[in-house]
Amino acid sequence: MTAYDPNNIFAKILRGEIPNHTVHEDERTLAFMDIMPVVDGHCLVIPKKPARNIFDVDPGELGYLAQVAQKVSIAACTAFGADGHTLRLHSGESGGQEVFHIHFHLLPMKTGVPLRPRVMGDHGILAQHARKIRDLMLLA
Amino acid sequence: MTAYDPNNIFAKILRGEIPNHTVHEDERTLAFMDIMPVVDGHCLVIPKKPARNIFDVDPGELGYLAQVAQKVSIAACTAFGADGHTLRLHSGESGGQEVFHIHFHLLPMKTGVPLRPRVMGDHGILAQHARKIRDLMLLA
Repeated sequence: MTAYDPNNIFAKILRGEIPNHTVHEDERTLAFMDIMPVVDGHCLVIPKKPARNIFDVDPGELGYLAQVAQKVSIAACTAFGADGHTLRLHSGESGGQEVFHIHFHLLPMKTGVPLRPRVMGDHGILAQHARKIRDLMLLA
Repeated sequence: MTAYDPNNIFAKILRGEIPNHTVHEDERTLAFMDIMPVVDGHCLVIPKKPARNIFDVDPGELGYLAQVAQKVSIAACTAFGADGHTLRLHSGESGGQEVFHIHFHLLPMKTGVPLRPRVMGDHGILAQHARKIRDLMLLA
């Protein structure tokens, strides 16, 4: 089992060394905008406890992460008028993982709206989108 | 909110009206081979409690489902020598959902092995694959 690298980008976000567009935070999880969104409202949710992926995450943290993912997903779909949703968890390079701190991708989906290529988003827009989702999380 | 349809195919599997290649069963969940596997070891895991998708599933059931998904995924990756994994949860038609009983797709992934098209698998092979995973679940 490969060891957790504390210098991955999400570990740096958790330590506040890199900024993020937060949509939800509690004692155990952080949810924020993907900076290369493939749809409007594309969020990531991560546990604060270090884990690389599905192979080593604490089961209790994974279960709680899924519950937070549901809340964020519903808020994001409401915020962007999405009638569908896709959740993805990539583990290992062959599984499509790029950052080795476990994260769910949360994608609000609309009929006829294809995924965009992964290119850097505009920070002003990401901040607006985060606020829309965060406001709905606070109402939930 | 659209109502849960008790005649969807997974509800029929849960009632024993349609057979399945089971890899795990407990009081709250059932995991079985996808009959149109896109990789060897492609499993689905579902809660027994009716729910359509991420929009209506009970949070406690979702959290437990994620924990069972982790166990099945690790067993399936071990069974098929996969060093990676992709988990997907599709909700709503626009989110890619086809059967409206919530289910995680669990895909053991290997470097250089692409996903296959979705075509009906051979039941003899699926039964063998289920046995390999089930044997490892029992050891866990």
